[in-house]
Amino acid sequence: MNVVELNPSTPAGLVKSEILNGVLRLEMNNPPANALSIALMQALKDALDATRQDKSIRVVIIASATPGKLFSAGHDLKELTLHRADEDRGRAFFARSMKLCAELMQTIVHLPVPVIAEVDGLATAAGCQLVASCDLAMCTDTSAFCTPGVNIGLFCSTPMVALSRNVHRKQAMEMLLTGETIDASTAREFGLINRIMPRQYLTQVVMKYADVIASKSPLTVKIGKEAFYRQAEMSLEDAYDYTAQVMVENMLARDAEEGMNAFIAKRTPEWTGE
Amino acid sequence: MNVVELNPSTPAGLVKSEILNGVLRLEMNNPPANALSIALMQALKDALDATRQDKSIRVVIIASATPGKLFSAGHDLKELTLHRADEDRGRAFFARSMKLCAELMQTIVHLPVPVIAEVDGLATAAGCQLVASCDLAMCTDTSAFCTPGVNIGLFCSTPMVALSRNVHRKQAMEMLLTGETIDASTAREFGLINRIMPRQYLTQVVMKYADVIASKSPLTVKIGKEAFYRQAEMSLEDAYDYTAQVMVENMLARDAEEGMNAFIAKRTPEWTGE
Amino acid sequence: MNVVELNPSTPAGLVKSEILNGVLRLEMNNPPANALSIALMQALKDALDATRQDKSIRVVIIASATPGKLFSAGHDLKELTLHRADEDRGRAFFARSMKLCAELMQTIVHLPVPVIAEVDGLATAAGCQLVASCDLAMCTDTSAFCTPGVNIGLFCSTPMVALSRNVHRKQAMEMLLTGETIDASTAREFGLINRIMPRQYLTQVVMKYADVIASKSPLTVKIGKEAFYRQAEMSLEDAYDYTAQVMVENMLARDAEEGMNAFIAKRTPEWTGE
Repeated sequence: MNVVELNPSTPAGLVKSEILNGVLRLEMNNPPANALSIALMQALKDALDATRQDKSIRVVIIASATPGKLFSAGHDLKELTLHRADEDRGRAFFARSMKLCAELMQTIVHLPVPVIAEVDGLATAAGCQLVASCDLAMCTDTSAFCTPGVNIGLFCSTPMVALSRNVHRKQAMEMLLTGETIDASTAREFGLINRIMPRQYLTQVVMKYADVIASKSPLTVKIGKEAFYRQAEMSLEDAYDYTAQVMVENMLARDAEEGMNAFIAKRTPEWTGE
Repeated sequence: MNVVELNPSTPAGLVKSEILNGVLRLEMNNPPANALSIALMQALKDALDATRQDKSIRVVIIASATPGKLFSAGHDLKELTLHRADEDRGRAFFARSMKLCAELMQTIVHLPVPVIAEVDGLATAAGCQLVASCDLAMCTDTSAFCTPGVNIGLFCSTPMVALSRNVHRKQAMEMLLTGETIDASTAREFGLINRIMPRQYLTQVVMKYADVIASKSPLTVKIGKEAFYRQAEMSLEDAYDYTAQVMVENMLARDAEEGMNAFIAKRTPEWTGE
Repeated sequence: MNVVELNPSTPAGLVKSEILNGVLRLEMNNPPANALSIALMQALKDALDATRQDKSIRVVIIASATPGKLFSAGHDLKELTLHRADEDRGRAFFARSMKLCAELMQTIVHLPVPVIAEVDGLATAAGCQLVASCDLAMCTDTSAFCTPGVNIGLFCSTPMVALSRNVHRKQAMEMLLTGETIDASTAREFGLINRIMPRQYLTQVVMKYADVIASKSPLTVKIGKEAFYRQAEMSLEDAYDYTAQVMVENMLARDAEEGMNAFIAKRTPEWTGE
């Protein structure tokens, strides 16, 4: 796979990126654990934010540059620990890290294009949160997931925000309280993962999904993704009032007219994203 | 099965209805796709609303008059498209359609009697929303479900209100973003479907469930169904404050006294619905 | 197993309790059905509240003193029925029962230590609610669960508060509307149960889980459990704002510093609970 460096300014090439047919592939490249240091979180967030300026990008994939190893081990414990020597015992730095992490996760949720996690390896703590925060997640059959902060005295309180919005409560609680690792199959059963594949097929299958989504009207996808997360926090009545309006505006957009005409005429639609 | 026409005024017999032992069976009869035209949505809503006047009705089943074919393909795209010629490009008509659809779905949720979807075929878009909006849903092993609006430029933004209150987020998102069809077994695994049966048994099994529910106190079922959806939108504390009150009023009703006395005396209770 | 009576003042030893290595085991002892009478609910609540005074308790297990029989059949119907003879037809007593029940369930949720339900038998109505209210639940392969209030004219309106926060809506509705019993395997599939074991291993496996959790920093577990249920009721943005603060405070606690240092130094942490 040809990984083109699009963000050469990113410190130490922490995020490799490549665009192929409207699909932006971001690979975390912070070996050995893809620890979510300030630098990596900022690089990921910058790369995601930049997609807003590039209308050609229809889907984002987040993967690791070292597949088969750690997808991400979460926060950079060494970086955090170093700041215990600060005058405020690290408080300001910890707050900055947690704020940036929360912003990164919400950037994924608020991005107008879908984000797919492509996982081949272990995703722990904020690494697991990253998977949970993506719209879709696919992994190899040897991947695994955990929220083991409890083992080091630091409960996975931010990861659980994303996790508990993906899986049932008792299942989230078991992961959080015991710190235990669940395998790919359990993660799929729980609702954290959409698809499991043997390693040799993972990237190919994720790309197939990305291509399918990239073939849709980007305006339609943007409308729908935004509406999905907004209505999820509303009462049933408010959700219907809101989405009924969304549907009307969507109907009046050029791409819906084109799509419906094409459907009725049994031809392939041509999207303009308007 | 003897389908008695109870609503002869419904245009073109769009909804066939039959009452058997307190179970109202509504069959959508808008071939070939049971498209949810204004007329069909209104006919369904009218039939549901009418049950409020008929104390003998304990359960409603929503099925298709053409089992094995499309359960419902959702909104009537031709009808919607025709109104693009309106002076306002269809805005008023689209708003009317979406409002009526949202009202129909909420009518199901707010109806004092349980509503069971009996699905034998494909349920797409608002057809899938109809299934998701029912209290229970059973289907044949050859049934399938999808929210494919994204394929025609019109994201399934109202269907997802119901869908996302039935299944986990990533599973809903996969259906919504890809438009892909899931089979009956996956729908059951996701939480959209309660029971799967071979075709020859479906109606019979659904009727068995309906009979079981119809054998309960209608007052009790009404109290419980209403409380279920209301408490679902509350905080834990508010939900307990509210349902504790509901329980006290329920206890003081005649049917609870009868039911508890019958249970203690090991006899069959006689409900009066009071 | 040596069951030490720690609460001899509890009427008729309604709750047996034992502390072993920081794990408080509470056994409901109200044969034959462990009916949740006022006395049993109060005894359970008192035993739970008392743990707040005993820093040595890290985990609570709720089990039955008569394993293999009813885990709990829910409210005491005979007690409730007796009060129909009161001047107010029982209203005040019913309100007191429902309030105490709601308080008991919320005491579990708000307790700073995790509570595990150990179920070997049938858990019905408020007995099922008790299982759903615990942070984790494990059961034997012959256990079963139901919310059958509808059968006696009294819908399981308070049990459904806990149930519907554990399982998907259609699955909860099926249990509530039909009153049907689900087996252990279905309960696990639905999300109500974490683990299923043959009878001879249940207590041993539950104790293993309890020991694992008891080995964590009690401060960390307390912070995390509280944050879990609070963030679950917030919008995504509020949840992140809140948990990011929780993480910072958690980081500054002595146990997180010790845990992270131990992790980096590859040694076992020593918790002080501070």
